[in-house]
Amino acid sequence: MLKISEKTAAMPASAIRKLVPVADAAKAEGVKVYHLNVGAPDIKSPDCAVNAVIEQCKNMHHLSYTNSAGLIELRKDLVEKYYKKVGINIEVSELLVEVAGSEAFSCAMQIAADEGDEIIVVEPFYTNYNTFAFLHGITLKAVPTNIREGFKVPDISEFEKLLTPKTKAILLCNPCNPSGKLFTKEEMLKIGEFCRKNDLFLISDEVYREFCYTDEPYFSAMDIPGCEQNVILVDSVSKRYNLCGARIGCIISHNKEVMAAAMKLAQSRLCPPVLGQYATLGALDTPFSYFDEVKEEYIARRNCAIEALNQMPGVYTPMPMGAFYTVAELPVDDAEAFAKWLLTDFRVDNETVMVTPAKSFYKTEGVGHNHVRIAYVLEVPKLKKAMHILAEALKVYPGRTN
Amino acid sequence: MLKISEKTAAMPASAIRKLVPVADAAKAEGVKVYHLNVGAPDIKSPDCAVNAVIEQCKNMHHLSYTNSAGLIELRKDLVEKYYKKVGINIEVSELLVEVAGSEAFSCAMQIAADEGDEIIVVEPFYTNYNTFAFLHGITLKAVPTNIREGFKVPDISEFEKLLTPKTKAILLCNPCNPSGKLFTKEEMLKIGEFCRKNDLFLISDEVYREFCYTDEPYFSAMDIPGCEQNVILVDSVSKRYNLCGARIGCIISHNKEVMAAAMKLAQSRLCPPVLGQYATLGALDTPFSYFDEVKEEYIARRNCAIEALNQMPGVYTPMPMGAFYTVAELPVDDAEAFAKWLLTDFRVDNETVMVTPAKSFYKTEGVGHNHVRIAYVLEVPKLKKAMHILAEALKVYPGRTN
Repeated sequence: MLKISEKTAAMPASAIRKLVPVADAAKAEGVKVYHLNVGAPDIKSPDCAVNAVIEQCKNMHHLSYTNSAGLIELRKDLVEKYYKKVGINIEVSELLVEVAGSEAFSCAMQIAADEGDEIIVVEPFYTNYNTFAFLHGITLKAVPTNIREGFKVPDISEFEKLLTPKTKAILLCNPCNPSGKLFTKEEMLKIGEFCRKNDLFLISDEVYREFCYTDEPYFSAMDIPGCEQNVILVDSVSKRYNLCGARIGCIISHNKEVMAAAMKLAQSRLCPPVLGQYATLGALDTPFSYFDEVKEEYIARRNCAIEALNQMPGVYTPMPMGAFYTVAELPVDDAEAFAKWLLTDFRVDNETVMVTPAKSFYKTEGVGHNHVRIAYVLEVPKLKKAMHILAEALKVYPGRTN
Repeated sequence: MLKISEKTAAMPASAIRKLVPVADAAKAEGVKVYHLNVGAPDIKSPDCAVNAVIEQCKNMHHLSYTNSAGLIELRKDLVEKYYKKVGINIEVSELLVEVAGSEAFSCAMQIAADEGDEIIVVEPFYTNYNTFAFLHGITLKAVPTNIREGFKVPDISEFEKLLTPKTKAILLCNPCNPSGKLFTKEEMLKIGEFCRKNDLFLISDEVYREFCYTDEPYFSAMDIPGCEQNVILVDSVSKRYNLCGARIGCIISHNKEVMAAAMKLAQSRLCPPVLGQYATLGALDTPFSYFDEVKEEYIARRNCAIEALNQMPGVYTPMPMGAFYTVAELPVDDAEAFAKWLLTDFRVDNETVMVTPAKSFYKTEGVGHNHVRIAYVLEVPKLKKAMHILAEALKVYPGRTN
């Protein structure tokens, strides 16, 4: 009998996108859905990014391949106009343009670990890490954290407990999707020392670097002294310049072996999207004040969301210090059933809200079943409406637990 | 000790791009290099493609994600404006937009076969098939062909010889990169029957579909009666509209399980490049006469290249009936050494030529060491110069065999 591969048959479907058909059905009935479920912000892309594409197109004869590592002028500009300015000092050869953070991450994982190997990740974590681990036959081992302690990184002994001869890397997302947790310098130094001591790679997903809501400077994994050979940085312009559709990211490492392997992987797919590369070239002329404005907007949205959530009886969420997500504990038996019920059964003035059940962001058994991820990516007035709907829904939800 | 994964360490580097640094060194000395080594044609991209991007950019607020399967309007237009017109009748749900042919191919392979499985491929074949097979732990078994017989597909008994319980698919590229071989209807029907009889997928890479130099209509794997569940079509707009940099392709199948698996894989990388999707939306308004003009140009180039090659003493190449490549047998001991020598040692009026050694396009031991792939992607006057240089080089090459 003709059968597809066992691997792709067994592959889990995207937990984030599972409820999309249910939302579509609600919309087909004329219901307005507030999307707090995806990290797709509504901020304007910088004009210089869009104009760069227009200019390139006006003068284009044909749209040819670029170097597999990306246009050399883009790599140079990324190094000079962005990384140098945020204090990450790298050579052009230590950066390779990828098809967004997704490809950068998938490559980093393959470079760090073979099939059968293990990677330690701090919980809760971006659910697609699971998907790539599954595809590459790598096991994720999760360090548990506590929502009531603001997802504080636990003592390094919790990492040690998970260490086996198969452990090849630590993986973290800073600031964190889904929790909004911003790793402190002390936490990063501890993790760095652990990696160095145990010869582990440190895969640091820093795509939300510009979204930090403290006055302290951002502390990148690239800043950990003595960890130069261990760190593999995963980055993307998707969130930074609101160019999610450009599909441009990069992988960065001082480790020559890592970069040589990244180049071999890159050559297999010929080159990154060229129009997206042009958009990024233009985006790099965005003044840093753009980030400040965006940050200010997000602080307002965050404060609105967190305050509203914590005022709902039985709801708890810590104050996220980065990214544009928060994980909230709800007084419900099953957050996935609740999220579905919002779409199928609950309306306020024919409007409802969509949230992401957070179970799939956890590995530890029994944790996260009553957690949701909220992306505060709407303007404050809309966000207020969405929070009102959520509050009303929790009052009457049949599966409420207290 | 900190070590990258065994897999990425052992991964072979791109055979096609290996000589690039050597060519760069020649160029740095001021030498002009005629590139016959890559399938990167110089034909103008259709204006409607480029204009579509400009229009979208002018009205753009921000560049957001699309559906993981691609913009719905793009999928509809691909089905209606292209596939229906070339006689491939599919539903929108039977097509998914991929990050060019490369991703489509990688997905097709993963869907058809698990690690440890085998796929039968007709020799010579596109060398990146090797790379993806390596990454997915799949073994390619090659059906040998003979350059002197124009790479005719051998009797089906040659396929049967390679059949094991681990064989999951047949893979072919039609018209073929690197040989330019166009599969006849009879050859396709035979292969189709073999797949049906043995429950094998038929992965058909048809990215050069518009480049056929016969009067007979193109016979796609999708046209094989009774093979509807077996065929997985890999396609791309890169060559068709000369939009290599757009990085847009698709995977097509009537098999629902295949498409469901493709969707799960697609969701892991969020969405295909959006600006490239816009370019493709525009490109679909290209009149079919564009292909005729391009074809006429390629026929002239092909005739020029093939005639010149076969006039060189000791050189043999068959007449390719599709794509824009040919494989030529040279009177040299080692085509890779020759290709390198062209770049390092040989000049005519300070010009030289770059060709691709074809060894890596073969699996069969001892075959292809004196073959090169020639991409006839230059205008006729330039092509004539390049052929002259090649002829002169062969006269004096120290490793000449006869």
